Amino acid sequence: MKIAASIIGAGGYTGLELIKLLINHPIFELVSIYGTEYHEELSTLYPSFKKILSMPVLQTNIQSIVQSSKAVFLALPHQKAMEYIKILSKYEIKIIDLSADYRLSLNQYEAFYTRHLDAENLNNAIYGLPEYNRSLIAKSNLIANPGCYPTASLLAILPFIPYLDNTQTLYIDAKSGVSGAGKKLVHASHFVNINENLFAYSPITHRHSPEIDEQITKITKTSIKILFVPHLIPLTRGMLVSIYARLKEIINPLEILQQHYKEENFIRICDHCVKIKNVVGTHFCDIYAKNDGKDLFITASIDNLLRGASSQAVANANLMCGLEETLGLPKIAYVP
Amino acid sequence: MKIAASIIGAGGYTGLELIKLLINHPIFELVSIYGTEYHEELSTLYPSFKKILSMPVLQTNIQSIVQSSKAVFLALPHQKAMEYIKILSKYEIKIIDLSADYRLSLNQYEAFYTRHLDAENLNNAIYGLPEYNRSLIAKSNLIANPGCYPTASLLAILPFIPYLDNTQTLYIDAKSGVSGAGKKLVHASHFVNINENLFAYSPITHRHSPEIDEQITKITKTSIKILFVPHLIPLTRGMLVSIYARLKEIINPLEILQQHYKEENFIRICDHCVKIKNVVGTHFCDIYAKNDGKDLFITASIDNLLRGASSQAVANANLMCGLEETLGLPKIAYVP
Amino acid sequence: MKIAASIIGAGGYTGLELIKLLINHPIFELVSIYGTEYHEELSTLYPSFKKILSMPVLQTNIQSIVQSSKAVFLALPHQKAMEYIKILSKYEIKIIDLSADYRLSLNQYEAFYTRHLDAENLNNAIYGLPEYNRSLIAKSNLIANPGCYPTASLLAILPFIPYLDNTQTLYIDAKSGVSGAGKKLVHASHFVNINENLFAYSPITHRHSPEIDEQITKITKTSIKILFVPHLIPLTRGMLVSIYARLKEIINPLEILQQHYKEENFIRICDHCVKIKNVVGTHFCDIYAKNDGKDLFITASIDNLLRGASSQAVANANLMCGLEETLGLPKIAYVP
Amino acid sequence: MKIAASIIGAGGYTGLELIKLLINHPIFELVSIYGTEYHEELSTLYPSFKKILSMPVLQTNIQSIVQSSKAVFLALPHQKAMEYIKILSKYEIKIIDLSADYRLSLNQYEAFYTRHLDAENLNNAIYGLPEYNRSLIAKSNLIANPGCYPTASLLAILPFIPYLDNTQTLYIDAKSGVSGAGKKLVHASHFVNINENLFAYSPITHRHSPEIDEQITKITKTSIKILFVPHLIPLTRGMLVSIYARLKEIINPLEILQQHYKEENFIRICDHCVKIKNVVGTHFCDIYAKNDGKDLFITASIDNLLRGASSQAVANANLMCGLEETLGLPKIAYVP
Repeated sequence: MKIAASIIGAGGYTGLELIKLLINHPIFELVSIYGTEYHEELSTLYPSFKKILSMPVLQTNIQSIVQSSKAVFLALPHQKAMEYIKILSKYEIKIIDLSADYRLSLNQYEAFYTRHLDAENLNNAIYGLPEYNRSLIAKSNLIANPGCYPTASLLAILPFIPYLDNTQTLYIDAKSGVSGAGKKLVHASHFVNINENLFAYSPITHRHSPEIDEQITKITKTSIKILFVPHLIPLTRGMLVSIYARLKEIINPLEILQQHYKEENFIRICDHCVKIKNVVGTHFCDIYAKNDGKDLFITASIDNLLRGASSQAVANANLMCGLEETLGLPKIAYVP
Repeated sequence: MKIAASIIGAGGYTGLELIKLLINHPIFELVSIYGTEYHEELSTLYPSFKKILSMPVLQTNIQSIVQSSKAVFLALPHQKAMEYIKILSKYEIKIIDLSADYRLSLNQYEAFYTRHLDAENLNNAIYGLPEYNRSLIAKSNLIANPGCYPTASLLAILPFIPYLDNTQTLYIDAKSGVSGAGKKLVHASHFVNINENLFAYSPITHRHSPEIDEQITKITKTSIKILFVPHLIPLTRGMLVSIYARLKEIINPLEILQQHYKEENFIRICDHCVKIKNVVGTHFCDIYAKNDGKDLFITASIDNLLRGASSQAVANANLMCGLEETLGLPKIAYVP
Repeated sequence: MKIAASIIGAGGYTGLELIKLLINHPIFELVSIYGTEYHEELSTLYPSFKKILSMPVLQTNIQSIVQSSKAVFLALPHQKAMEYIKILSKYEIKIIDLSADYRLSLNQYEAFYTRHLDAENLNNAIYGLPEYNRSLIAKSNLIANPGCYPTASLLAILPFIPYLDNTQTLYIDAKSGVSGAGKKLVHASHFVNINENLFAYSPITHRHSPEIDEQITKITKTSIKILFVPHLIPLTRGMLVSIYARLKEIINPLEILQQHYKEENFIRICDHCVKIKNVVGTHFCDIYAKNDGKDLFITASIDNLLRGASSQAVANANLMCGLEETLGLPKIAYVP
Repeated sequence: MKIAASIIGAGGYTGLELIKLLINHPIFELVSIYGTEYHEELSTLYPSFKKILSMPVLQTNIQSIVQSSKAVFLALPHQKAMEYIKILSKYEIKIIDLSADYRLSLNQYEAFYTRHLDAENLNNAIYGLPEYNRSLIAKSNLIANPGCYPTASLLAILPFIPYLDNTQTLYIDAKSGVSGAGKKLVHASHFVNINENLFAYSPITHRHSPEIDEQITKITKTSIKILFVPHLIPLTRGMLVSIYARLKEIINPLEILQQHYKEENFIRICDHCVKIKNVVGTHFCDIYAKNDGKDLFITASIDNLLRGASSQAVANANLMCGLEETLGLPKIAYVP
């Protein structure tokens, strides 16, 4: 049995990773790729696909998509995604949106992004963090695939929410490789500017901050103030979050993590500080935590383009289509 | 007028930077370089000195040092430094120790390093952070040159101590380039292991934690709990600290920094997040801060080998010898 | 059907890649891993295997190997490999040696490496470059898996041998990522020494030079003087060779390449200069060539750890065991 | 005594390096900086100049330049430079042009670049390679500052021209850091595209090829066919050339280099392969050579932005103004 799937948005890093994942997927069959520009061959856009996959990149066409596919992945910039989803959602097709368009409440979305064009679907979209929303995802037709920073942060924080002193702020110091900044040519990603460099950006005001905030509340029914500061790191792939919080009482953080995630295949609790290299190329999230009295330090790592985007999208699509969640998820890291 | 100076410990990165700084210094004259191994020519050890400086690396000899030099810089591993300083301190010579041997109280030193061999001098040594200990440094014969993480952290934190809620913990998320891990061949600094990688290490228990802690108390007469987590970053030089703390009341952090450091030549208050590239190659410390209500975020950058070691040592030597503090300190960054 | 396979030498980069390849192989089943040190779990040696593969790293034991396995890969330093192969070769087992021990004639081996301990097998070993020795490999029990530089160089040069003026020298300017220098802690691979650096090493005298030389003669029955200069590049994986030679007459080099490799699945002829990124993570060799009158420039890229070592070993094992050559060979590049 | 100097073109890497060099120069005084855009303060364009140099970036104005300055450096794109120089050359001012506009013969310029607008001055401009054109430079008012690849290549090749078999081609395999590709936002310099990557570009047809070719003929009165292939390397600064040529007879290449450059302060003959790190930050060119019978291998390294551009421009300005050539040239490498 094969399930036909399409991708809209081939030009960015997450679109590229989706193509790679679907080529290797045992059930999904990539039937078409759409982009904003037409290319006769995928390999003119990405020479690495030469002799692997011969397929055109088509101009996006809703009718062909819904006729040919049971599932569609949108790897588009925000705003562009909802324009398509508003229409796609009228059809029988599983939609996985990798943009930010369905991740936030209407208020927060309009405060941090732009005017929302599809409020109705916004209310029904499910936040695609499988470890926490598995059964909702399985019943949904529209998944808001989580952002990379929120994925790493939430997986690290959520097990500890019952133990945190929520009168105090939780601080997230996040570090992302440059692929997280996208393919667009901007000064921050010019090699000469970021190589041998390092800096924080958008401290406090980054758009992933309300996403983390809202999901903590939604998933745990508890709220805590978070302060989120991302940093850009001179490496291509990978993300690390270092989190600082205050406990209500002294706990054994590794035991709590072990217990909380004991059934999970793609969360690994480490007995030492996690390293980006062990997860790059995979769907894993590695987590380590340590307390100093009532102060808690948590550190977690993911591949920003896979667990932080495209492999999480595939996990969501698996669940939506009644497949085993872990089908086709990459496990073997690129190390060394 | 020239002042004769020597260096003990040519083989490490801070020794190398000291040589480079003293070559360019208008008053200090580098009269001899000592190491654990004899080399006929400095340029056999460092080919980049060919046609620049012809000088042997001598086996360390206390008598020659005290006879030839008015000031001596020790760029040695801890323990080794105090063995020499115990003897050197009996002579009329200005001593700048770049190791950790005289930075901590006896108790903390023995808890975090090893048994101390020179408790007497430990009590008299001055912590060489010029912005805070200028007049003490000027009168001292023995300077404990600060560690790299403490330098960046203290310069960022100290202006805010009066405004912090010290019932809450101050969190320091520090990031260092690989030169900070030293020249020794260890797995963490093998190119394949750290390139495209990133991780925290020694969380909470790093030896620079008590140094920051004790100096906050000593300099401000106020104590606050700190939690310090360093990270290793895939770049050669430079250090960034990101600090999270709780304010007693809402303040304007940039105004406080501007006011606090308005007389300082080598502290720059930035109106945006600081970047490592702007300080690498220089003695500058760049600082930016921003609050979110009562939560304070501070980020500061230094060159770990210069302001975090060798140029700070030169600033201290300048003060000890009655020279202008800023003589010979590097100002022009290596960018791009 | 499954074929049991073992690996001797788990600690180096090529051993690690072999483990990754065999985990994903449809026919070979990795039954045991041997090393010089015992580890209860592979994941203590390589944390990235946690939750993927639970298997001990055993002390090498010839009896267990030959009893449990139909094929054995040796990822050992030269000299160590032949000590085992001398014994292993007495048994019915397919041997793929990733070391240099069986790549050269006795004379050249003893001139460039050390005294040979197994001259008899040396004569019978087949050089495992599948594109040129396919049928010999299929009948062999002992494969000398080619070096990384020779693989890239030979695949690029061999199609042109009939057209070259062999009274003139062929120059190979090769560039390798740091994983090519091995896992051992040496100065050249300390991050601080190779990051932001670049240099030639062992010009003219590198051990891969006679390997290229002998194979050109052996495969084409033609000899040409080669001059080989490798360079170390600040990146983890990947290899590029740039080759300069003199033609007897003007040709169309791309047409010759297309024609020569038209049946090959893992050679891609490009119409522009090849890039390392398009082959890293794969078994592909990408080649481009261009002439300027009678001067020929060829440039080829491979993943030094895969096509230059471990995936080529798997291709050889496939052939030796009567499987399709391309089974389990990695196709999808790590880009971006 | 001070000599007033101006820079036109502050926005690129070579303009930035010129500013840094002139700040430290003992005789030249940087009186004004011009660009295509006006900036109230240099430090808004380059934050690293904060607290170092307070100076506006002015809109270019020929009248102010010639009235205020005795020397002017043009760090502009080709074509733009000659538009200004056509006018500037009518005044009493020393002109150092870092663009390609005056480096080639009219024919070659128009074949490789664009139509030339200032043929008259083109004939009179002197190629600013001090080691070979010292006395001509001293008498000139207009210097064509050499390109980076030609600088490294010519300094390496010229000593050997009398010994080369010029019936055979000389091959130059050149490698440049990414700053050589300029500050413009293009795909090749996006961090994700060049990090962990490496490739040749513009093989045979690069614009620096005719420059090397013409200067060999002009300086040595001998011609030899060259084939030039540049490569882009994932590092910020530095350039390495590896050159392959055929000798008429066997020579001792190191002795020839030593003899040829024995009076030169900024050429270092090395007894091992040169490394980029030893020259980055300096005006040095390091050279090593080795023969294999009649085959010659030469490797040379420079800082592409200094010896390959801005410090060579300062050396030329020194000579033109009757100063010692070496004044203000950087000697101390950035290592580690």
